[in-house]
Amino acid sequence: MRVLVPFAAEHPKTRLDDIFDPRERHAFARVMLRDVLRTLDEAGHSPEVLSTAPLDSRMPVTVDERPLSTAVNDALDPPMAVVMADLPLVTPEVVSELFSSAADVVLAPGRGGGTNAMVVRHPDFRVDYHGASYPDHREHARAIGASIETVDSHRLATDIDERADLVEVLIHGTGETRAWLDEARLELETTGGRVRVSREASEDG
Amino acid sequence: MRVLVPFAAEHPKTRLDDIFDPRERHAFARVMLRDVLRTLDEAGHSPEVLSTAPLDSRMPVTVDERPLSTAVNDALDPPMAVVMADLPLVTPEVVSELFSSAADVVLAPGRGGGTNAMVVRHPDFRVDYHGASYPDHREHARAIGASIETVDSHRLATDIDERADLVEVLIHGTGETRAWLDEARLELETTGGRVRVSREASEDG
Repeated sequence: MRVLVPFAAEHPKTRLDDIFDPRERHAFARVMLRDVLRTLDEAGHSPEVLSTAPLDSRMPVTVDERPLSTAVNDALDPPMAVVMADLPLVTPEVVSELFSSAADVVLAPGRGGGTNAMVVRHPDFRVDYHGASYPDHREHARAIGASIETVDSHRLATDIDERADLVEVLIHGTGETRAWLDEARLELETTGGRVRVSREASEDG
Repeated sequence: MRVLVPFAAEHPKTRLDDIFDPRERHAFARVMLRDVLRTLDEAGHSPEVLSTAPLDSRMPVTVDERPLSTAVNDALDPPMAVVMADLPLVTPEVVSELFSSAADVVLAPGRGGGTNAMVVRHPDFRVDYHGASYPDHREHARAIGASIETVDSHRLATDIDERADLVEVLIHGTGETRAWLDEARLELETTGGRVRVSREASEDG
């Protein structure tokens, strides 16, 4: 199935500014995108990037500067999937689970109420990523008479937006994103029973 | 299978002190425990509470004041499962998934590196909940030659410790815990694209 992967090419991952500088955030977003594209490809799907700016990629790239929901709705051509670019924990097995349901609308909620991945088979479905999009997408699917299924996956629910999310990559990640974090000298630290990410100073820093 | 449900009966859920007073945290912890026990029961298992203090419950209660890992290891009698008491999103379907694997050690990671649920069939396995217990439990299982399986579930990964976790209950919760939060006048609020929990003032407040 064709899979759209929306990507914010400019000023990505601003909520990671307490740990990465702008150049690092730029690189980190691209590393996560590559992991997601590779995983979709390995799972037998055809990922296409929907980027806000031109981008080098092995996969086809469409540039659309408009807001996320507008751009996705314009490109949406069911049956089609939409998978976010900041899901480095996703494995081919998890992708297969997402596609295994035959429901008209399959939703993978993100932590915090977002929609991290979806499969759309109903021609009238439209996305709206603003706010708590997962309950909104459910309600919309119900309103248009589409059958709905939800995928319960920690890997799919974990979009990487802020420092606490990096803990999940260090614990569960295996791909290029994990290697990039190791290279950036990030490590787990346990303080008062809670696990956080800390960053070692670089040798030449 | 017998399922241990450890419960911190005194001073529970201190990290929710920015939204609930001590009496509310006490009540909230018990509501979550009841949801977990009911769900385990509905899934056909036999939950037993391992509590730090005496407790009223429909299920058997053992009181053990010692630290969590010590008390659990002392009570552990494989085959047995250990499921945390603060997982109100868990459904009978998710519980069935946890028990569907025949591995010697089945682990359900919590967000932040903890171990929210496990099934132990290997006689030499011991728990250690301090710090990033999920990778530690994996390593220990490997060291004793136990086969390992991980359950990838957002519902099992979501233990309710702090304010941001309540968003998940308002979005995905269905049981008594969800009703309790509605009663406490908690609701979702979207600010700058991020979803948070806010609390309405009570009418008589």
